[in-house]
Amino acid sequence: MMSIMDPHHYNEIIRCLCVLQYLPSTAVNTTLQLQELREQMLELNISAYIIPGTDAHLSEYIAPRDARMAFMTGFTGSAGTAVVTHTKAVLWTDSRYWAQAERQMDCNWELEKDGEDTRKHLQFPPLETQEDYELNLGSSNHSLKSIPTNLVDRVWKKRPSILSDKPDRLPDRVIRNTWQDKVTLIRSQLRDNPYQPTALLLSALDETAWLFNLRGSDIPYNPFFYSYTLLTMDTIWLFLHMERVTEELKVYLNASCNGSLCVQLKSYDSVLAEVKKYVAQPKVKVWIGTEYTNYALYEIITPQDKLMTSSYSPVLTTKAVKDETEQRVLRNAHVRDAVAVIQLLMWLEKAVPAGKETELTAAEYVNKCRSKQKDSKGPSFETISASGPNAALAHYNPTAETSRRLTVDEMYLVDSGGQYLDGTTDITRTVHWGTPTAMQREAFTRVLMGNIEISRTIFPSGTRGMLGRRALWEVGLNYGHGTGHGVGNYFSVHEWPVGFQSNNIPFKEGMFTSIEPGYYKENDFGIRIEDVVVIIPAQTKVAAVGLPKSEDYYLGTTWNTALFDASLQWLNKYYETIREVVGPELDKQKLYEEKDWMLRNTEPFTSPGSSASTSISSLTLIALAVALVHDII
Amino acid sequence: MMSIMDPHHYNEIIRCLCVLQYLPSTAVNTTLQLQELREQMLELNISAYIIPGTDAHLSEYIAPRDARMAFMTGFTGSAGTAVVTHTKAVLWTDSRYWAQAERQMDCNWELEKDGEDTRKHLQFPPLETQEDYELNLGSSNHSLKSIPTNLVDRVWKKRPSILSDKPDRLPDRVIRNTWQDKVTLIRSQLRDNPYQPTALLLSALDETAWLFNLRGSDIPYNPFFYSYTLLTMDTIWLFLHMERVTEELKVYLNASCNGSLCVQLKSYDSVLAEVKKYVAQPKVKVWIGTEYTNYALYEIITPQDKLMTSSYSPVLTTKAVKDETEQRVLRNAHVRDAVAVIQLLMWLEKAVPAGKETELTAAEYVNKCRSKQKDSKGPSFETISASGPNAALAHYNPTAETSRRLTVDEMYLVDSGGQYLDGTTDITRTVHWGTPTAMQREAFTRVLMGNIEISRTIFPSGTRGMLGRRALWEVGLNYGHGTGHGVGNYFSVHEWPVGFQSNNIPFKEGMFTSIEPGYYKENDFGIRIEDVVVIIPAQTKVAAVGLPKSEDYYLGTTWNTALFDASLQWLNKYYETIREVVGPELDKQKLYEEKDWMLRNTEPFTSPGSSASTSISSLTLIALAVALVHDII
Repeated sequence: MMSIMDPHHYNEIIRCLCVLQYLPSTAVNTTLQLQELREQMLELNISAYIIPGTDAHLSEYIAPRDARMAFMTGFTGSAGTAVVTHTKAVLWTDSRYWAQAERQMDCNWELEKDGEDTRKHLQFPPLETQEDYELNLGSSNHSLKSIPTNLVDRVWKKRPSILSDKPDRLPDRVIRNTWQDKVTLIRSQLRDNPYQPTALLLSALDETAWLFNLRGSDIPYNPFFYSYTLLTMDTIWLFLHMERVTEELKVYLNASCNGSLCVQLKSYDSVLAEVKKYVAQPKVKVWIGTEYTNYALYEIITPQDKLMTSSYSPVLTTKAVKDETEQRVLRNAHVRDAVAVIQLLMWLEKAVPAGKETELTAAEYVNKCRSKQKDSKGPSFETISASGPNAALAHYNPTAETSRRLTVDEMYLVDSGGQYLDGTTDITRTVHWGTPTAMQREAFTRVLMGNIEISRTIFPSGTRGMLGRRALWEVGLNYGHGTGHGVGNYFSVHEWPVGFQSNNIPFKEGMFTSIEPGYYKENDFGIRIEDVVVIIPAQTKVAAVGLPKSEDYYLGTTWNTALFDASLQWLNKYYETIREVVGPELDKQKLYEEKDWMLRNTEPFTSPGSSASTSISSLTLIALAVALVHDII
Repeated sequence: MMSIMDPHHYNEIIRCLCVLQYLPSTAVNTTLQLQELREQMLELNISAYIIPGTDAHLSEYIAPRDARMAFMTGFTGSAGTAVVTHTKAVLWTDSRYWAQAERQMDCNWELEKDGEDTRKHLQFPPLETQEDYELNLGSSNHSLKSIPTNLVDRVWKKRPSILSDKPDRLPDRVIRNTWQDKVTLIRSQLRDNPYQPTALLLSALDETAWLFNLRGSDIPYNPFFYSYTLLTMDTIWLFLHMERVTEELKVYLNASCNGSLCVQLKSYDSVLAEVKKYVAQPKVKVWIGTEYTNYALYEIITPQDKLMTSSYSPVLTTKAVKDETEQRVLRNAHVRDAVAVIQLLMWLEKAVPAGKETELTAAEYVNKCRSKQKDSKGPSFETISASGPNAALAHYNPTAETSRRLTVDEMYLVDSGGQYLDGTTDITRTVHWGTPTAMQREAFTRVLMGNIEISRTIFPSGTRGMLGRRALWEVGLNYGHGTGHGVGNYFSVHEWPVGFQSNNIPFKEGMFTSIEPGYYKENDFGIRIEDVVVIIPAQTKVAAVGLPKSEDYYLGTTWNTALFDASLQWLNKYYETIREVVGPELDKQKLYEEKDWMLRNTEPFTSPGSSASTSISSLTLIALAVALVHDII
């Protein structure tokens, strides 16, 4: 069927065709897919079609088959929302991706620049976003509607197919609670909730993965499989692709019985219909986490009194606090990961002056080192290996076209991590093999001060939000990203909802988070220092002398020291820990040269003057070559 | 008409009568008013009646005639919400008031303890609260409804009458912008708003007071008069009690013309009807600030597309940034206020050892000192004058029964402020005239460190939220109140929406805020150190050398110093400012003994060791006797 277009639109196409030749060679011609999508819209009488950058589970990382925004726009950044009307096509993305979007989109598309503060909003367009849409549509004659078929899929002829790998059980040695324990625990939270929900709907892929101690490989870098779970007090419905269910999995999940600890396996595609059927029953109330539930599922839970919402499901808040076993094995994973990072840094120190290494070869090297470690399951994200000005680009990954040669004249930033059966890691080190400028030294010192300041802060349980930018602010510097994010046991490298932003949940004992202040000077260099820490109870002075505490307990470092010269002590204590914890692992792996390198790079600092600030400021650009979890915040 | 009660309720009354004799003598018998209210509810078929602790303008301070919650419950605290059903009567309040509520309420009432984090929520029950109510009612068969008459007023026979004082113009010397300038400015914000509101409804009393440069005396300690304003592009409707409108006021407001800068005076009680009439017109959209608009007004702005909301109206966000004149006169008010505080502290130092002074006489003394200062309009809140354990009670005010004698053996906290035609002040000092304990010294030092830390922090424009508790947290201490609040030019002493909490607006140049960390040890002592500061641009190192700035500009202190010994420098610089600014004022007022006392108490500290922390820690409990605004945050 031929579409009816208004003349203005014809003009647009003509204009677009005319200027196409002036576009960068990296731009993608999207004329055809746009035309086909508009035909579909016309058929269904749709004025505007929203294409989020995420998948049905509001995942941060998505499978190639879910990259609908990229297919439609050409833009491959990880955050964005596209809207297509019959006369316009607009992409919203944040400042990290403006340059990339301009390079990748053709003249069919307009770029709308979103501010820093809307980044989260775009990355995971949750229900609130939908409500925003509704509110903004309020005064027009349009309304928001979810439709049963994805129109992009109809026009995407070469859409990649789904991977057919089967979900795998985690080995018993890395878990403490069986899936039955976890189901019982979550059910008790349903029972105790004053709003009396009768069911919990889990949409985020890591929720189902955590609940059943299962992992998959549907999403790059993320060990997840497509799934939903509907948990009630006496049933467990697991929605997944039935063709990948093995006999072994059925036995593991007690799939052939009907009791309250038997899992009823249902087809992934039946989730909408099944939830609708459940909601149609009298006296039911479904609890959803609004941050990870898509609009189609949300809108079928109706009327309002059958719906109960919180930002995050009880699975996500429970999962955020790691149990004893999870803490132990996650630390182990970090010790092995430290070996790989030490191997990289030592090798670079020798290889870079010879002038043959590049961002790409460095990334390959560290990936190879990690792959040799026990229980390795590949990188936890695409390695950011960035020299000089490339390090100032947020979320830069080297490609054959962009990869720079590493030299002693440029700063080098490497942000990388691994997936292991026992844990996920994420570490950033910034190094300079020659003589840094005064500005680079100042910025690095202040980023390091920020990292140490956060690591040393003792705070009441339940504290949330931002800390640790003071050293940078003081001289007029800052960084445009969050200070850290949750990390856990073989999940997504950004394990929400733990972190330092206002939409993260309050800190509690047993949570793991990265600490990663940075500074980025456009077209020049980038600095980030990232570690993973665990939140532990602190022994405060007041608690020690038995005085009444103002809060339940405080969290902080185990090496509590005096106020003003502690940064240096802290650093030396940190170095000592590297020697004590990573040293034996290097011995065990017979990496004697690496051990020597590590010892040379963890020599204690001696205080040259009376004040620690002097010594910290006079540090050259040191590479703290460790990725092990330390007992701090 | 006799009411029909269920037997359970009779039992309740009998139980209540039986235990009344065991209640503290401070409890109020509320049986009669409750019975009468329930009769009213029955007549209108109402299951539950909500009695907020605030007035129709969601004011923080209310007139006696609006103290409906206190009349119904006996509880006189400033934060709370009461709910009456036919069988139950429940009061919600936060931890500051639990002890007081237990003392004041009889057995008709149950106390529900609200957590710290719901304090704001209760203090100003805004629209969100109403939405909470609705959500929670969702699954019951009840709905929320506002009714035209206040049922409490029907049963409150001796309800105080309204004061008949007329609103007064501010003198020209304290203002820069006329009301016509302000109307034009706010209209331009309506015009520029992308949602295209056609009108702005002002409900908060300080909004109308600010817009017209008028002040009244309907509310104790707050120079406000009952009013609403509806501002459109070509009309100004001012709702107030017509009987208090003078000829002079009519002239001032151009009340007899019809132009866009003529104010149409309307009866206060007609606001609902008039707004309803306005909303009934086609193509109108009314902008309201949800934090200060009551539910009855909110619900008549319907359908949804005639409503535009933001947390705070553009008047409140505009008013938060003081213009040049406002800044100048507000500083002047603080210098005169400092004289009154110095007089109090000097007098106490001499009088306390003689053993005749009490919390009450001290409060009277400082009020008297303030009343002698130029342009004084009385205290800005009831003086908190608290010795020993009384200082640990939040919002304690001495009464004849509770007032303690001041001695050299107890710490003393005085939190007081004045209203002046040119500004509002608020200052807290904590002193000890004998030998403090080690714990008191430690706590005071750390509260002072918090005050100094915030005063010295440089931060990007737009920063919001919490800072400066680290010194306390480090040893396991904390305080359960906000770190500061806006202060301004002859308004409420807590001038929202400026402050340090997450629901405050981001800091900008020209805002004034208090900084008031504290520490409270139950049944023992309380410490608070409170100053008022103004937010100014900072000269950062990066800006100074012309490097690109990461943000528009940074805010901070004018005495930017090195990192680790700056606290002491800062304190000495602060003392120097007191000498320079308050010294001449004391001379002018011929207060020579006070001048000597001030000079003795602002001797510069000399650093005994190399590290400032030592000297700060060794400070005895000093009284920083100054209330002048300093150029910091």
